Amino acid sequence: MKTLFKNARLLPEYGYADKPVFIAVNGSYIAKISDEALGECEYDTIVDCRGNLLIPAFYNAHCHVAMTLFRGFGEDLPLADWLEKKIFPAEDRLTYERVFLGSKLGIAEMIRAGIVSFTDMYMFEDAVADAVLETGIKANLSRSIASFDESIGPENDYRLKESIKLYDTYHGAGEGRVLVDFALHAEYTNHARACRYVAEEAKKRDLRMQVHLSETKKEHEECKARRGGKTPAEFFLDCGVFDLPTTAAHCVWVEDSDLDIFLDKKVFVAHNPVSNLKLGSGVMPLAKFLRRGVSVALGTDGAASNNRLDLLRELQIAALLDKGTTGNPAGHTAKELFPLATENGALSQGRTDCGRIEEGKRADLVLLNLNSLHNQPVYDPYATLTYSMGREDVLLTMADGRILYQNGEYTSIDEERLKYEFQKTVAHYFD
Amino acid sequence: MKTLFKNARLLPEYGYADKPVFIAVNGSYIAKISDEALGECEYDTIVDCRGNLLIPAFYNAHCHVAMTLFRGFGEDLPLADWLEKKIFPAEDRLTYERVFLGSKLGIAEMIRAGIVSFTDMYMFEDAVADAVLETGIKANLSRSIASFDESIGPENDYRLKESIKLYDTYHGAGEGRVLVDFALHAEYTNHARACRYVAEEAKKRDLRMQVHLSETKKEHEECKARRGGKTPAEFFLDCGVFDLPTTAAHCVWVEDSDLDIFLDKKVFVAHNPVSNLKLGSGVMPLAKFLRRGVSVALGTDGAASNNRLDLLRELQIAALLDKGTTGNPAGHTAKELFPLATENGALSQGRTDCGRIEEGKRADLVLLNLNSLHNQPVYDPYATLTYSMGREDVLLTMADGRILYQNGEYTSIDEERLKYEFQKTVAHYFD
Repeated sequence: MKTLFKNARLLPEYGYADKPVFIAVNGSYIAKISDEALGECEYDTIVDCRGNLLIPAFYNAHCHVAMTLFRGFGEDLPLADWLEKKIFPAEDRLTYERVFLGSKLGIAEMIRAGIVSFTDMYMFEDAVADAVLETGIKANLSRSIASFDESIGPENDYRLKESIKLYDTYHGAGEGRVLVDFALHAEYTNHARACRYVAEEAKKRDLRMQVHLSETKKEHEECKARRGGKTPAEFFLDCGVFDLPTTAAHCVWVEDSDLDIFLDKKVFVAHNPVSNLKLGSGVMPLAKFLRRGVSVALGTDGAASNNRLDLLRELQIAALLDKGTTGNPAGHTAKELFPLATENGALSQGRTDCGRIEEGKRADLVLLNLNSLHNQPVYDPYATLTYSMGREDVLLTMADGRILYQNGEYTSIDEERLKYEFQKTVAHYFD
Repeated sequence: MKTLFKNARLLPEYGYADKPVFIAVNGSYIAKISDEALGECEYDTIVDCRGNLLIPAFYNAHCHVAMTLFRGFGEDLPLADWLEKKIFPAEDRLTYERVFLGSKLGIAEMIRAGIVSFTDMYMFEDAVADAVLETGIKANLSRSIASFDESIGPENDYRLKESIKLYDTYHGAGEGRVLVDFALHAEYTNHARACRYVAEEAKKRDLRMQVHLSETKKEHEECKARRGGKTPAEFFLDCGVFDLPTTAAHCVWVEDSDLDIFLDKKVFVAHNPVSNLKLGSGVMPLAKFLRRGVSVALGTDGAASNNRLDLLRELQIAALLDKGTTGNPAGHTAKELFPLATENGALSQGRTDCGRIEEGKRADLVLLNLNSLHNQPVYDPYATLTYSMGREDVLLTMADGRILYQNGEYTSIDEERLKYEFQKTVAHYFD
């Protein structure tokens, strides 16, 4: 399968200034980039970009995709009530079929918003994997491991068994589109022996880890009280978790010494600004993280606490919060923050051949409508995409060289059927 | 002109639960609301809402609409550099024609985002008025008055003369669509005698006032240092400005005693969360304002510091910041915040027959796409519109009974011609 993008505008960093660019995609990869026209005969598909902006696609570094089922369910409640009275009882009724449909709806939403890959931690991840394989998106999937009860050995934990089965069944599936990570839900939901055991099992298989970390002040402070002053980051460090490449989600309340750990252990931070605001968790001090050189990528978290799976909006709000909470409008440029939504997300998934528009990289591309009325004028395309654009400006999404969405239509999803089945499932959820 | 909306879903507060509703619009007003089908013969236009959500339209309580010309111009600079090196020199080159085109583009953007009226403070407001009259939107327009030099008497100030001329020419034009307010730019750009004089002139004409107030910490603190401890709110109170109905924009740094003044004088606060973040001004403590009973409406500010004229996004970010900065996810419900984007905006403009869907109110209506994939499922339509929807879900915008936008098309604006003329103007702005 060969696709030619013609007359595209690239971001300034790619060095083509305002010259229209021609990009040849062969199979999953970008084969050639040129500012001279390329012959069109050999291509199966030709996309005329007519001055629109072609960017590396978005990577969502933290998600619970099936939680679209609970979007808007139990709004405006205190966190404990929301979780205990609404979300946990609803999650008790999850099935493979429900998770499959919820995931497919969330994947459709992400594809339309220019997201080509997501990091996921949840239950019934086999259903998520099947939805990923069917729709053409990419994902790093993990079965969330919680081990509240120390009397149950991790070697017998059904969640770890599911994690291993997920790995055995799906790791590398879809020509590498699906990768399996191991996940420890959080410090407060696990004991040390379980964390050590899971880290060892991950090491045996050369896998990546996902954790929630210092999302709320309560979580952070209670950890220190419980564990002789140790922070969640110090706890995971001690358990050997950070000896594996790890993505730590949220990190709103981490301390300066935790950032030293992140730097030393090359931990990726998944920053979820919208979810952190909506749940009242607070604002992660992004400026400090970036000043220290910590690797930060952006995540949406689940749709139940967002309620959008829209990484462009996360980028916008991350940028606005960065200026607004530091009081410094000159703190980070839109150009400096852009990799948080793209290349850093890919790297946090271990996908080193993604995240940039370069010959030999995977063709993960999004075409954005620079001509929308609300984007005029375009002085700086980074600012335009960060502050003016919305997901509605996504004209095309390509993952691994395959067009998944173009001009309002999905190529791998029957949208009306999906909505019908999803709505029916949700309507009968508590039957 | 008669329009019938059929099969619409209204917000729960209107008492029709999930029943489809029929709404008859006659001229500028809502003539009838019924949950039984109305005969269709007498209507010029019939809009089948097929289960979509019909809401009162959005009112933008603070804007400088022509600043679309400077959207993205001089991004990521310190505030003083941005203003002094970029915006002020560019504003020196404004003309009637440039303001007219910039306004028309901003108006088109607002109409598409469901905004039917805006409050504006700028220069060449005659050009803004002409753009308002041509496009069918509504606006409260004011010529921004600044009086740096106390030696120039306000009675001779050309800006006040322009304000009076604007009033004489446009107040009430377009069957009341255009209203003229008087505006004092801010405390730090005016001396007391000018403020008193302008307030007197406004009183003579029974007009409303617009001011910027305590937008930045620097502005607030320097006022107190300069004026013997008086805050900007106390300064304007002393000058008699608040004896007129006033909209005070920003109010990020006001003190508790200032809120007493707002309550006593029934001052409307225009909350501009995105602009306040982007310029590094901070976060207005909305929860405190609402707890005290201050009337708050939402504004976008100008596109140069936002960069969107999108009140739905202001509502979303106001709601997220309310939860995120108080740490209380149960602070305000989406339902409680909704009037900030609708009825409160109308009232801040003195438009008391607007802002709600009721028989006898003006037909300012927006139809929102409840069926978008990214809005599923819909448990609570307030939450759906606040947290899931985007401006792309606006299917129709009606102002004073006239459809201005429907399904991607404007009825009063030639979009392609407008973009062409705007882009040409911007490209040659510094020629």
